[in-house]
Amino acid sequence: MLASLAMKAHTVSFDFNNMMESALGRGKGLSLADLQALQMRARAIHARMQEMRRNGTTPFYDIVFSENGLRPILDMAERARERFENLVVLGIGGSALGARALHQALNPGHHNSLPREKRSGTRLFVADNIDPVTFGGLLDQLDLSQTLFNVISRSGETAETLAQFLIVRERLERAVGPRYKEHLLVTTDAERGPLREITRAEGFRSLALPPGIVGRYSVFSAVGLLPAAATGIDVRALLAGAREMAGRCDTADLWKNPAYMNGALHFLAQRKKRKGICVMMPYSDSLAGVAEWFCQLWAESLGKERDIKRKAVVAPQCPVRSLGATDQHSQLQLYMDGPDDKVIDFIRVEKPAHAVEIPRLYADKSDLGYLGGHDLGELLLAEQTATAMALAKKGRMNTTVALDGVTPHIIGQLLFMFQLQAVFAAGLYGVNPFDQPAVEEGKRLAYGMMGRGGFEKERRELKARQGEKNNRFIV
Amino acid sequence: MLASLAMKAHTVSFDFNNMMESALGRGKGLSLADLQALQMRARAIHARMQEMRRNGTTPFYDIVFSENGLRPILDMAERARERFENLVVLGIGGSALGARALHQALNPGHHNSLPREKRSGTRLFVADNIDPVTFGGLLDQLDLSQTLFNVISRSGETAETLAQFLIVRERLERAVGPRYKEHLLVTTDAERGPLREITRAEGFRSLALPPGIVGRYSVFSAVGLLPAAATGIDVRALLAGAREMAGRCDTADLWKNPAYMNGALHFLAQRKKRKGICVMMPYSDSLAGVAEWFCQLWAESLGKERDIKRKAVVAPQCPVRSLGATDQHSQLQLYMDGPDDKVIDFIRVEKPAHAVEIPRLYADKSDLGYLGGHDLGELLLAEQTATAMALAKKGRMNTTVALDGVTPHIIGQLLFMFQLQAVFAAGLYGVNPFDQPAVEEGKRLAYGMMGRGGFEKERRELKARQGEKNNRFIV
Repeated sequence: MLASLAMKAHTVSFDFNNMMESALGRGKGLSLADLQALQMRARAIHARMQEMRRNGTTPFYDIVFSENGLRPILDMAERARERFENLVVLGIGGSALGARALHQALNPGHHNSLPREKRSGTRLFVADNIDPVTFGGLLDQLDLSQTLFNVISRSGETAETLAQFLIVRERLERAVGPRYKEHLLVTTDAERGPLREITRAEGFRSLALPPGIVGRYSVFSAVGLLPAAATGIDVRALLAGAREMAGRCDTADLWKNPAYMNGALHFLAQRKKRKGICVMMPYSDSLAGVAEWFCQLWAESLGKERDIKRKAVVAPQCPVRSLGATDQHSQLQLYMDGPDDKVIDFIRVEKPAHAVEIPRLYADKSDLGYLGGHDLGELLLAEQTATAMALAKKGRMNTTVALDGVTPHIIGQLLFMFQLQAVFAAGLYGVNPFDQPAVEEGKRLAYGMMGRGGFEKERRELKARQGEKNNRFIV
Repeated sequence: MLASLAMKAHTVSFDFNNMMESALGRGKGLSLADLQALQMRARAIHARMQEMRRNGTTPFYDIVFSENGLRPILDMAERARERFENLVVLGIGGSALGARALHQALNPGHHNSLPREKRSGTRLFVADNIDPVTFGGLLDQLDLSQTLFNVISRSGETAETLAQFLIVRERLERAVGPRYKEHLLVTTDAERGPLREITRAEGFRSLALPPGIVGRYSVFSAVGLLPAAATGIDVRALLAGAREMAGRCDTADLWKNPAYMNGALHFLAQRKKRKGICVMMPYSDSLAGVAEWFCQLWAESLGKERDIKRKAVVAPQCPVRSLGATDQHSQLQLYMDGPDDKVIDFIRVEKPAHAVEIPRLYADKSDLGYLGGHDLGELLLAEQTATAMALAKKGRMNTTVALDGVTPHIIGQLLFMFQLQAVFAAGLYGVNPFDQPAVEEGKRLAYGMMGRGGFEKERRELKARQGEKNNRFIV
């Protein structure tokens, strides 16, 4: 009884009944033995992570405990809230997805269109693409004298972000003269990289990233926290949530550790049941950004060709972002009747922040009379329950993370849980979750096309390959 | 020479060099023989489609030629533009994705925040989910006296849309009294369904859908065209584009038909090269909605368990929506180094509507000096070219659709091409592209949960299954 009460005390819970053969049927689901067989490896991975923590090589873990790191972020955020109407993040990938996930989850949908006195902080725009139509349109639309640009690149070398920075710097100088410097805040490595050099030379304000933090594990660093705090999100509560989850998951026991259990289940689903796809499907518009953030975390952490011993590995599931109930009317047909190669990962919110009652109208009509008197959120939750069950009845794997609500404390738990899940899964696959070696080739070719010095070979290769194109294969 | 000029005259072209063994290497790519082996089946499928057109069983095709069908849509849209500030679509899945795709592609990103005199038509909000936070928030925010609600459901039975309708109808009556009727426009079947019955009884304005039009093929019907026209999009040009593509693809010759060729290539990639995933990756923010729309089209058209002869079939690829250049910093690592189970389908825009020059600053720094003097759109296109080539160098399949620009005429071509591609691929798999039988089970269970009469058995089943849950499998 006490144990069950204690369980209920968690505001984030993880239900994997529909991964197991007890719900899906023998052969379809996983068995207790499957999980037990991983317990030894879980212990070994947990011991290694503890050792890495002691050695200071898990900055993603350490930053949620760092009070010193938080101070300059909060100070800078306060200044932004006092002085500026708009904050624009110039960043891409991990420099953008965390801030957007927090903003969508924790600020109201119409945050940016609220008047200042009804807003908890600055407006937020995340410019994570270099489409000239969107980026040019955004700059034309903003009052630059009221806008702070947060340039975010860990390496300081990201071509897209540097291009945005150059454009913004010039426009700012045109708009506000030499005070342009006050409108730039740079988040980058503490010591190295071209952005850091420029920041020193120009005297821009800046925030330093701890060494070794990569984008997809940076949401609890200045990368995610500065924009969140500037818009008015309680980042202390967010970090407290992350720490709570860190504590809860500081055990090698799969049965007590939702992050490890989730990682183990996805590993087993892929290895033993050939589920090559995992679909992250929150039933909450506010969590669409979290799903997007998760897709990067999962893809870049696990999508490796070789393991840490340089042995070939076919590791990861392809993550897919979905949204309930909407995608029931778009993707569910495929999830039910298409190839049985997916795990569907639901997120549900037990207590939505807004009650919207469906009125009792046309009560005589059987097709809609039954809706009256229910809350719209009830319908949403009923659809999630029904969809999970319909999948399970067909023997199709799915999990459900249930959140009590959408608060900073709960989102802090959720994101930290996903990070631990990805790191643990990487441990099972034997791959390095913190590198992304495969994107270099494309970067070099793009440098060649843009005429960057030192990339003449790539430029020639590109031209040669373009020249080899067969016009017959262009319709 | 003339032939090559004629080819260049197309404003939509399809480049599949990187699907072929000439670019990817033997064994990796497809061969000419692979394609030639499908040519006979292409002829048979084309002949059957022609026959269906003669029999009037391809309404998705016929509607782009129907001048009669267009008149009431244009009249209704004109009234909306004159009388209302806001148009809210209440619809889900195919009732929402087409309108949103057109709006994102063809209206400026900040359309809704422009003052009326700078806007070509009404604002547009697509309410395609029943999240109470978002939907309640939207209704609270709008001036209902200035708002038209377009309730869209082909069957008239869609629970989510009916729930939205009930809520809106009551709020309208509270806000504007008996004139609430003027604020509702119903798009549904001409004769049948509860929405049609209510529309008749209440005297709402309405648009009728041709029989047999399903959501994912409805973008060129009132479902997609009314919202588009109300916001000021030139739907005549859109339809002209669709007709142009219909004419271009009215041939069984794969080598002249981009829709059939694309369908054939994806079929072959899945059947012969085990590419179970296709990634739709436009390099244009404005086409994110098109990618989303395509994902429904592909998933629901092909995601079938049985073919038309009731034989088991493992058909479709799982469609994934991606965005360039953004997702180079999120998903590309997986596409390059993860399992080789994907076709990446790029869309690029040769002439973006906005020029944004990157200024020559910090020219001495090799990491960013090379960017100065280029246009931001050049960088975007260079990255697409480089990414496609990097994938091909690794033997990974990809295609590129190149658009001259983003105009109604071009988007009309593109969407119609994708529809034909899906229908043709369904022909190759032998499945019915126009049904979606698998989503019924979940609907019945949800009815049971909501207490709808006639679904007591489902309610009992649900309770029983919930009761069987093993608490050990909840962490």
